Amino acid sequence: MATKKFAGPSPYTFKPSYPVEDYLHTEYFNNVTTNHSTKSQAKPVVAAIFGLGRAGSIHLSSIVRNPRIVLKYIVDDRPENFDNLRKYWDLSDDVVMIMSKDADRVYKDKDVNVVFIGSPTYTHHDIVVKSIAANKDVFCEKPIAENIEDTKKCYEAAKSKGRVLFAAFNRRFDPAYRGLKERVRKGEVGHVQILKVTARDSPLPSIDYLKTSGGVFHDCLVHDIDMSCWVLGELPIRVQSTASALIPEVKEIDDFDTIAFLLTFPSGAVAIGDNSRFSTYGYDQRLEVFGNRGMIKVENERPCHSTETLVGHEGLKQTPIYYSFPSRYRLAYIRELEHFLDIVQKGVPMEVTSWQTLAVSKIATVAEESARTGRTIDIDWSKDDIPAVYS
Amino acid sequence: MATKKFAGPSPYTFKPSYPVEDYLHTEYFNNVTTNHSTKSQAKPVVAAIFGLGRAGSIHLSSIVRNPRIVLKYIVDDRPENFDNLRKYWDLSDDVVMIMSKDADRVYKDKDVNVVFIGSPTYTHHDIVVKSIAANKDVFCEKPIAENIEDTKKCYEAAKSKGRVLFAAFNRRFDPAYRGLKERVRKGEVGHVQILKVTARDSPLPSIDYLKTSGGVFHDCLVHDIDMSCWVLGELPIRVQSTASALIPEVKEIDDFDTIAFLLTFPSGAVAIGDNSRFSTYGYDQRLEVFGNRGMIKVENERPCHSTETLVGHEGLKQTPIYYSFPSRYRLAYIRELEHFLDIVQKGVPMEVTSWQTLAVSKIATVAEESARTGRTIDIDWSKDDIPAVYS
Amino acid sequence: MATKKFAGPSPYTFKPSYPVEDYLHTEYFNNVTTNHSTKSQAKPVVAAIFGLGRAGSIHLSSIVRNPRIVLKYIVDDRPENFDNLRKYWDLSDDVVMIMSKDADRVYKDKDVNVVFIGSPTYTHHDIVVKSIAANKDVFCEKPIAENIEDTKKCYEAAKSKGRVLFAAFNRRFDPAYRGLKERVRKGEVGHVQILKVTARDSPLPSIDYLKTSGGVFHDCLVHDIDMSCWVLGELPIRVQSTASALIPEVKEIDDFDTIAFLLTFPSGAVAIGDNSRFSTYGYDQRLEVFGNRGMIKVENERPCHSTETLVGHEGLKQTPIYYSFPSRYRLAYIRELEHFLDIVQKGVPMEVTSWQTLAVSKIATVAEESARTGRTIDIDWSKDDIPAVYS
Amino acid sequence: MATKKFAGPSPYTFKPSYPVEDYLHTEYFNNVTTNHSTKSQAKPVVAAIFGLGRAGSIHLSSIVRNPRIVLKYIVDDRPENFDNLRKYWDLSDDVVMIMSKDADRVYKDKDVNVVFIGSPTYTHHDIVVKSIAANKDVFCEKPIAENIEDTKKCYEAAKSKGRVLFAAFNRRFDPAYRGLKERVRKGEVGHVQILKVTARDSPLPSIDYLKTSGGVFHDCLVHDIDMSCWVLGELPIRVQSTASALIPEVKEIDDFDTIAFLLTFPSGAVAIGDNSRFSTYGYDQRLEVFGNRGMIKVENERPCHSTETLVGHEGLKQTPIYYSFPSRYRLAYIRELEHFLDIVQKGVPMEVTSWQTLAVSKIATVAEESARTGRTIDIDWSKDDIPAVYS
Repeated sequence: MATKKFAGPSPYTFKPSYPVEDYLHTEYFNNVTTNHSTKSQAKPVVAAIFGLGRAGSIHLSSIVRNPRIVLKYIVDDRPENFDNLRKYWDLSDDVVMIMSKDADRVYKDKDVNVVFIGSPTYTHHDIVVKSIAANKDVFCEKPIAENIEDTKKCYEAAKSKGRVLFAAFNRRFDPAYRGLKERVRKGEVGHVQILKVTARDSPLPSIDYLKTSGGVFHDCLVHDIDMSCWVLGELPIRVQSTASALIPEVKEIDDFDTIAFLLTFPSGAVAIGDNSRFSTYGYDQRLEVFGNRGMIKVENERPCHSTETLVGHEGLKQTPIYYSFPSRYRLAYIRELEHFLDIVQKGVPMEVTSWQTLAVSKIATVAEESARTGRTIDIDWSKDDIPAVYS
Repeated sequence: MATKKFAGPSPYTFKPSYPVEDYLHTEYFNNVTTNHSTKSQAKPVVAAIFGLGRAGSIHLSSIVRNPRIVLKYIVDDRPENFDNLRKYWDLSDDVVMIMSKDADRVYKDKDVNVVFIGSPTYTHHDIVVKSIAANKDVFCEKPIAENIEDTKKCYEAAKSKGRVLFAAFNRRFDPAYRGLKERVRKGEVGHVQILKVTARDSPLPSIDYLKTSGGVFHDCLVHDIDMSCWVLGELPIRVQSTASALIPEVKEIDDFDTIAFLLTFPSGAVAIGDNSRFSTYGYDQRLEVFGNRGMIKVENERPCHSTETLVGHEGLKQTPIYYSFPSRYRLAYIRELEHFLDIVQKGVPMEVTSWQTLAVSKIATVAEESARTGRTIDIDWSKDDIPAVYS
Repeated sequence: MATKKFAGPSPYTFKPSYPVEDYLHTEYFNNVTTNHSTKSQAKPVVAAIFGLGRAGSIHLSSIVRNPRIVLKYIVDDRPENFDNLRKYWDLSDDVVMIMSKDADRVYKDKDVNVVFIGSPTYTHHDIVVKSIAANKDVFCEKPIAENIEDTKKCYEAAKSKGRVLFAAFNRRFDPAYRGLKERVRKGEVGHVQILKVTARDSPLPSIDYLKTSGGVFHDCLVHDIDMSCWVLGELPIRVQSTASALIPEVKEIDDFDTIAFLLTFPSGAVAIGDNSRFSTYGYDQRLEVFGNRGMIKVENERPCHSTETLVGHEGLKQTPIYYSFPSRYRLAYIRELEHFLDIVQKGVPMEVTSWQTLAVSKIATVAEESARTGRTIDIDWSKDDIPAVYS
Repeated sequence: MATKKFAGPSPYTFKPSYPVEDYLHTEYFNNVTTNHSTKSQAKPVVAAIFGLGRAGSIHLSSIVRNPRIVLKYIVDDRPENFDNLRKYWDLSDDVVMIMSKDADRVYKDKDVNVVFIGSPTYTHHDIVVKSIAANKDVFCEKPIAENIEDTKKCYEAAKSKGRVLFAAFNRRFDPAYRGLKERVRKGEVGHVQILKVTARDSPLPSIDYLKTSGGVFHDCLVHDIDMSCWVLGELPIRVQSTASALIPEVKEIDDFDTIAFLLTFPSGAVAIGDNSRFSTYGYDQRLEVFGNRGMIKVENERPCHSTETLVGHEGLKQTPIYYSFPSRYRLAYIRELEHFLDIVQKGVPMEVTSWQTLAVSKIATVAEESARTGRTIDIDWSKDDIPAVYS
């Protein structure tokens, strides 16, 4: 009876509590108690979505399942697909499908108050400008526009019209990354010394896509750079980078597939990043923060992550990591959408600010220059209109 | 340049593929290609839901997000909550809320073709019988009725009317458990020797709940027993069990909180189970299968499972396991609902058959008898109308 | 500079400490400080070893590396191997090699004060008796003798001569299992409800070995039973077991290869065990303890356990678990030897007591009876001369 | 009986094999079969050891347990400790203890054929030179000497005398790192794109130690750089580095505590490293290699790594990582010693060549310069006498 003495009082005498990490239980608890503080109490928004390609499909799948949104328009230039779409998504006849040449119908429709943009990059600027001019709030896949000047103008237009212009940096809405950031900001690891970010793409993007992607620094590394600054709450003052093109097709278009960088921050923290255009084993996304009190890291998420197999002498096998950004960041996309609706419907502050987007873009430009020239580049942010304190 | 010789051909020469384990990518891929074979191509069903308590809330949250369902009725006996519900869930005025005494309105409404039952156990039988009589398909939280005879009658009624009567054994729809079962059935671990199932409840259920739960063998162990038979594809011929009541309040109502059992199967396989009414560290749910070729096991799933923390000498810390059944089995609930809709809308075969439900119930009864008497009990299935080959 | 505020005082102001779990650091620390309290301060013992088969080889490899022991005799009946042995182990000419028929030379040699027995089971009793009669301390592979009566007599002889008779239950000296036991006994998981022990053998023992092994209950399950009682600190009062012989050759000799058991303890705790004669994936050894405050478990140890591989879509791969008992329990064997030397040289109390060995043997006998008859068997320990309080 | 059909033939029909990863089983198998090809067949070497501080104690603990070595001299300048040492290590009277001023006795003793050097860095050169002049083989803790010129001279002396001069780069002998290197060199991950090495020290070294350590680049980063080149099999042509001194005491002596670097290799591979003088959570040592076929990584090793704890809502807890280099690399030290003995006794080629040691030293110098000046530095190895093909 050696351990019976440790039995202690009945568990019925305990005050129940649960771990905050179980965000699904929180959601359930709010549901079962109809906890209104967590919910919109607002009429659903009426929405149009532009573009149903890779990113558009992701957003559409969230939109049709979200009772806070009534979808009214789909704008896409493959009309031969419209019937399929209607059947596949069980869309009612109230959903109007049009081509982009007829997009004015959307802008003129006063019922529509939000616009989702998932169409090709070169179309973003035009849709943003017209939507804001028509007093609609905008959710736009990054980038807002093809250059910094146009991006700035879009933000200024949004500001003057009092409209929301939301650049979709999906990784910020991943529960694991967000948890890491919040714990770092509360000081759990102390003063950060090293931040390490790894991003290796899967599947391999087509060369056609790469040609119009703006280059790997602007297409991919912006995310890694955004993660670094967002977690650390500061902007780097020194950038060092190196890059190789090991895939012949990538070399041919004068882009890179293998990139590493160092960012030195005013506090003495250093961000280390590595990025690749292709990983055979899936979409490798990791983040690690080391400070004078300890370390927090987010390793790769995997479906059915707790399944383990041992057959013969092959060793312990677990499931592959997520294959692609839509599967890895599925939750992030859903939560990003909820955040956007919270901004629009409930007035919560937008988490991805205009100047953050612009700063990240500048760092990417500088990093590419460092890789191409072999030079270390220092940045003086006082020259830009960037807040001294990143929040 | 030691490894350059391994570079091989450009990845652009590879035929892309992805791992089947990434079911979220499969879903994305179907969405982006509007793959109709995976979708309903059917008009949404019109539904009523009875009961918005613990289980009902889970199903409601899935229903309002599912475009395959139009919710028409909520039947619940807390009318003071109706306004809250409408606001919280952004329900349109088309959703009718009534009390159970007015449930005839549902049965008489010819638009309604499916009924979801999440109300207290003692109400199930009546709602099932009336819904089936009114030609509606039924999704019912287990148990279908309070005893085996009434359960049999419900199934017979459904059969004679050609209606679906679906008993919600949620664990079968968990992607990890399902993956394990399919791999075992394909022979990946060979002839199964040992199956091990662990289930420890969290949070601690109230004593009021326990009093009407039918006892832990019928409330909880039915799931463990169902898992064992479902994975192995056979029914046990010998049952041995032992049980303790270590929590005084549980002992007082003559129930158990700590249970272990052995099931011996005709093939020589042995299932080992342990079950507890309360685990302080969360909802512990594990399954392991060992055969002459190897082992597959499903350990506990955790939110943000890939987050690791190392602070001081406390050791490596990872997130807590899911706290409760709604968070742990959230995906299972969503997929269970999709399966029910596939039965109703597309005619796919029902996976939880009537006789499986009845066999599990009988084993639970026998296991309780073994624990209470200390005797080993052999079962002769030929006396029951149970198929020789479990599928 | 968001996290700089958390920098705090210089680490040079901290008082250093290290985690007790790092037993290798403790050893290093003792070495670098020549901490005598941890060491023998005694003259090396002079030893003979009987038998250089499977177990003997393990002990020999520890003995030749242990400066606390001077090896004087090797007794083995394969003299054709003696030259090889001397060369392989770099043994000096001072080591005498003889056959068992000449073992009297060992017993009569007054220099020899300890005897290690790794020879076949049927020889144990004779060597034990003669060694003790000659005033030598004895380290004996289990079992001490072929039946309980002879075992009792050996212990009595050792007691009357004031000699050490140590039965080698190696698992108790594994750092992971020992850590688990100590934490359980300190109440870390509270009152234990469930203890789970898994043991699956690898490699497959030869049928010749099995024929003389005494059966799987006495050859293997004694370890699982010993683990259960040792961790819980009590003896079971109810035994339920089931067993199959799925390997034809095992069935033919009327033994079992697949065994499961339930032990119910006076405190209400239940031990669940499963055991197999053969696992294709290595030597599977696990232990789990669940109590009203939480759970501690020891999963399989693996060489290079932190190596992870991700190649293509095969999933995450880690190293195989240890293949065999000599590799899995290598550390346990070394520490077991140190414990024996501590008993002999420093008078520390022997951890594996005579009555524990006898109780485990009785439980194994009862478990086999339960499996063969299908009956539950209750044990009344008051009939035996077994202490009420297991320590 | 669903899975019985997969039973297949009896396992007694299989040809047994075991996984090569289980190096402890290999050792056992060699022992039990007295496999001479794996063993020395040589007379033990006669050894002297200089210095019994941090490193010396580690080597002494291996030496006294190694039957291939007869220890004859301990040379140390704390004679007040000699009695303690003799008792603590159970050393026989044959072991002579002297002070360094009497070291000539060692050099002149023709019995002594190997010398181990663990004394302070500034003494290395003198002991190396005299030992080699006296025809002894030398095992020397890094660095061989305090500057590159002296180091070169030592190697030249060893070469001209035909003696072994072994620089102890312990990490190369860690089974996990070695396994990774061998698999990379066989092409398992294809052409390497990214190599990532993390090294964070624990415990915090004293400032007195740091003052004479030669700076973090030469004291610590040499190991990270050696790992990078050793695994990749090439030398970098571009070095970029950044460093901070966040600990005031470290800043004061103009050293760094937080370092990151990028090495670009001729093949296009990039090595990324981060290094810290202090980690609160233990000795953090990781290595990762990513290539066009996949990734292999070695995460932190931990004692009792398979122990898991779940108590309350604290989350899943595992043991802390090893606290220090002697515990983390205990196996590496033992295997490094065996390699040295294999060189001396059996003539196997030395794995740590002179020019590798010199190249690593040069890269460390260049990396420090990059961190201090902010400049990228390119290296032209053709100017040095370094082989084009690193093996």
